[in-house]
Amino acid sequence: MQNYSALLKRIGARPVGRPVVVEPYVPDVLEALAAVGDWADVAPVLVGDKARVEDRLRASTLDLGRVEVVHAGSSAAAAAEAAARVAAGDADYVVKGSIASADLLKGLLGRDRLGTGRVASHLYIIEAPAYAGRTIAFADSGVNIAPDLATKADIIRNSAEALRALGVSRPRLAVLSAVELVKPGLLSSVDAALLTVMAHRGQLGDVIVDGPLSIDAALSVEAARSKSLAGAVPGRADILLAPDIDAANMTSKAIIGATGRAMGVVLGARAPISLPSRGDSLQTRVHSLLLASYLGSAPDADP
Amino acid sequence: MQNYSALLKRIGARPVGRPVVVEPYVPDVLEALAAVGDWADVAPVLVGDKARVEDRLRASTLDLGRVEVVHAGSSAAAAAEAAARVAAGDADYVVKGSIASADLLKGLLGRDRLGTGRVASHLYIIEAPAYAGRTIAFADSGVNIAPDLATKADIIRNSAEALRALGVSRPRLAVLSAVELVKPGLLSSVDAALLTVMAHRGQLGDVIVDGPLSIDAALSVEAARSKSLAGAVPGRADILLAPDIDAANMTSKAIIGATGRAMGVVLGARAPISLPSRGDSLQTRVHSLLLASYLGSAPDADP
Repeated sequence: MQNYSALLKRIGARPVGRPVVVEPYVPDVLEALAAVGDWADVAPVLVGDKARVEDRLRASTLDLGRVEVVHAGSSAAAAAEAAARVAAGDADYVVKGSIASADLLKGLLGRDRLGTGRVASHLYIIEAPAYAGRTIAFADSGVNIAPDLATKADIIRNSAEALRALGVSRPRLAVLSAVELVKPGLLSSVDAALLTVMAHRGQLGDVIVDGPLSIDAALSVEAARSKSLAGAVPGRADILLAPDIDAANMTSKAIIGATGRAMGVVLGARAPISLPSRGDSLQTRVHSLLLASYLGSAPDADP
Repeated sequence: MQNYSALLKRIGARPVGRPVVVEPYVPDVLEALAAVGDWADVAPVLVGDKARVEDRLRASTLDLGRVEVVHAGSSAAAAAEAAARVAAGDADYVVKGSIASADLLKGLLGRDRLGTGRVASHLYIIEAPAYAGRTIAFADSGVNIAPDLATKADIIRNSAEALRALGVSRPRLAVLSAVELVKPGLLSSVDAALLTVMAHRGQLGDVIVDGPLSIDAALSVEAARSKSLAGAVPGRADILLAPDIDAANMTSKAIIGATGRAMGVVLGARAPISLPSRGDSLQTRVHSLLLASYLGSAPDADP
């Protein structure tokens, strides 16, 4: 993938889309929104308890005149309203406020709302100066706890589609494991081998998949060479898929901890969902909103 | 923990102990040994097929006069000889050559050889400049695939004992998970909570344990504060314990990839075992030998 600054520039060059924010009772959300743009053309929709939302608004720097506030008496009602807005073409992406992630996803994806038939999954895009200044996408650090093979296939489809929308025509995806050999007793290596063959058979779309690969073999050309791993992916992966949420979360955060620049989004619904984690910096929150906006209003995104 | 350079200095200040090297048919092993010292007082013992070992020796820069070569006709015989040497007090630590890791561990630990009643586990000590120049110990990236609770307890005992031998009188250990809450459906968080209480009850020895913690909450004071996590461990962990080999391997390698300096050792036997991985640099191999030597000849190590 191109470097992080070039990616930000690409994303920033497109006008911001219209967000619908669910229960924006935490200050960070409005602060990040205020930092994203002046909202002259596309005013954000804020859904939640009207009095609480307006209290928060008065304490923020967000321009009151540019904002639409919609009352919803419960988290479920707020999520349903957000789904309806997106379904009606009236919002381009969804932003999580105080609502619990599970409630938001259930409200958005349940009962034929914004579901696409695919499992939803999180994607982090991370600057990795230690790896020749490259930018690495990391899936899935935040949604699926212990994804099975079919779920991993959906995570790959979601992530690869997002990278194609960001200009990587044929993303290279490494399925991570602790090893490079297929070990019957190590599920991560077994799933990795199956996903590799699924990709060869065209089951995962326009993406090059290889695994099992250790993370050094995936990211470092020298490590790939020292382990005699050939092919397009070793040493040059654009996307990393870890076996479960523990491995994905701690590995992606270890890379973010060493650099500091990252943006995250939840994919797989009919619109992107910005689902910041408590530990995210304001910068990460702002970049994440820009990413969701870009992907939600992308004219060239493949379906 | 002190910084990596200070740690190396501490380790280097003690005279090297005597290694027994099992099947040193790969050139890297002898190259690393040659870089460690001049072996004037404690000549390494090399065990394996005598002709093959001597071939390798002639191609290396290791001083032939300082080396004892012992013939062993099979990997099992070589591992048994290594165990006998350590048991007799004739070697201070074991070094893996070409022998498969599983065969080496089985040969050393099986049939009352060097077993201590504890499960063996790997420990990486990693320089982490991104985290205020600190040094982080990472357990277990290389031996136990899916450790259960009892195995995790042994891994904690092994790691904490090694850190105490390295001068950290009461190590702070974070049990990692993707979350900070105890989630019944997420085994990593459940085991972390159980290990925390086990440590409180004194079941794990002189070590301060806290978990579940995400890796940013474990290592970053700011992240710990933003998540309102109090106590001695959040933001200041000396040792990280990941839930399984996948998570441990990819997280530790992500940190090593961003920095480059690390040393590894297998603990839990009656002597340290140096078990380099194929991707380790010569520097890591040399530092790992020094660490095994230090721990194997440590007069102040607690039993």
